[in-house]
Amino acid sequence: MTGQILASWRDGSARQAIVDFVHATTTPGAEFVEPADRIATFDNDGTLWVEQPLPPQFDFVFRTWAEEVKADPSLAAQQPYKALIEKDAEFFKGLAAQDPTVMETLLKAFTRSWAGKTPEEFDAQVREWTGTAKHPKLGAPYGELVYRPMLELFALLHANDFRVFVCSGGGRDFMRVLAEETWGIPQENVIGTAAAYTYADGKLIRSRELLGSLDLGAGKPEHIFAHTGRLPVFAGGNADVDIEMLQSARFALLVSHDDDEREFSYTTGAETSLTKAMELGWTLVSMKNDWVTVF
Amino acid sequence: MTGQILASWRDGSARQAIVDFVHATTTPGAEFVEPADRIATFDNDGTLWVEQPLPPQFDFVFRTWAEEVKADPSLAAQQPYKALIEKDAEFFKGLAAQDPTVMETLLKAFTRSWAGKTPEEFDAQVREWTGTAKHPKLGAPYGELVYRPMLELFALLHANDFRVFVCSGGGRDFMRVLAEETWGIPQENVIGTAAAYTYADGKLIRSRELLGSLDLGAGKPEHIFAHTGRLPVFAGGNADVDIEMLQSARFALLVSHDDDEREFSYTTGAETSLTKAMELGWTLVSMKNDWVTVF
Repeated sequence: MTGQILASWRDGSARQAIVDFVHATTTPGAEFVEPADRIATFDNDGTLWVEQPLPPQFDFVFRTWAEEVKADPSLAAQQPYKALIEKDAEFFKGLAAQDPTVMETLLKAFTRSWAGKTPEEFDAQVREWTGTAKHPKLGAPYGELVYRPMLELFALLHANDFRVFVCSGGGRDFMRVLAEETWGIPQENVIGTAAAYTYADGKLIRSRELLGSLDLGAGKPEHIFAHTGRLPVFAGGNADVDIEMLQSARFALLVSHDDDEREFSYTTGAETSLTKAMELGWTLVSMKNDWVTVF
Repeated sequence: MTGQILASWRDGSARQAIVDFVHATTTPGAEFVEPADRIATFDNDGTLWVEQPLPPQFDFVFRTWAEEVKADPSLAAQQPYKALIEKDAEFFKGLAAQDPTVMETLLKAFTRSWAGKTPEEFDAQVREWTGTAKHPKLGAPYGELVYRPMLELFALLHANDFRVFVCSGGGRDFMRVLAEETWGIPQENVIGTAAAYTYADGKLIRSRELLGSLDLGAGKPEHIFAHTGRLPVFAGGNADVDIEMLQSARFALLVSHDDDEREFSYTTGAETSLTKAMELGWTLVSMKNDWVTVF
């Protein structure tokens, strides 16, 4: 398939580093990796699709919260519902900054919104959103805001017997609805922050509890090992919450959002990871220079 | 591959039911199942290998406990170490009976024995055991006490684009050491009761905590859904702790241990599941009558 691979990637050091690494790990020699060990893991928000102005799952959950406030107007006085109604962008900046109080408030509202649902009910809610929601700046449905170069990277890895997993701080079950159609990977290869379920009377019901830790920071290698029994050979991310996952991999790829024309240009929430990339020799991908096509 | 499939299975209703179900779910028609949905899950102890006189992982953990008592003789006065030293079979019967006090005592000792280890240290300990331990009655290494007919069933399912998962109350990481060589399934397809890990300073360390519920009873469909995003189309088990998993599947296979000559004959811990099999039309597999070869 040479010649067709990574077609949306410009010739350059990032593309070359990927091609060289995949070749070295799949060819007999010092760098060879047994097929069983070929695990590749990718963050989602900002690595596989647009995460500005907020990760798309927020757009989804904001709809749910708006309905919850309608059903119980007393919520309007509480965070995060108050910030949503008042369009208080300052409050949500606490998310990018990983402010613990904001994170806890958001998490509580997240788990409240999903508790009591069956998997089918939750899936239907996500599909309703994917079918109707559009990005506020780019005007396209979120499913079209997946980076084509990353899907080509998945294809290259699959063709070389890597198993590709998505590992994101976002909701596991939210992402699983997208996994097969959008990424071409099976639902069981999606790792994320997850609701615990209880099974009773032949039915699964989402609880308010989380299963395990948040899938961010050190939680990423923890979740990846729990799910696969291995740490990644290849990992891709774009933010400070991906640092531990990238450090745990043999090959680390960091997407840099420097393309204000076709996407966004920002370093907020990624400052440390950009420094680490330099220090540790990670492969830095410039969206502007390395990608012929973004979407 | 017809003619070669399920070669160790006698012609009979169990074999026929399996062949018919796999054919119906992979052939266009009312029973067809999309490849993406073809999830098959199997219990391990008593379903894939011998579980008498105790599930093999107990033989493994007993060695660890013996070393712990050597290092700290005060443990000898406490359960379950006391029962181990005194060869108190009565105490361990509480396990088959799911006695909550016995279960809790055992679990505490299990988690104590694994805490603080890296994955590599734990794997090495399991490999030391698989390389040396033998079954007390059958005299063979445990790795040879895997049921050949079940491996043939895995092969049939794999050939028909089912993804096969093992889902057992036993330790996830213990089973993962066996998964690829013994069952021919990737480590990430092993679901089990699991230690939580923490990742710090570039290292994963097992904690004393469990990640999620015990993978028994209702815990089985909970774990399967958490891991795969689906419930099984095909499930195999052998005990009361498999009932919920079998009920959650479209096709349920229950292994009946009725072969005192080649293996063991017992119904302890499986009484309710045998009744359910009759009630709900599950496929009952008689080890004695349905299997030409056991190992």
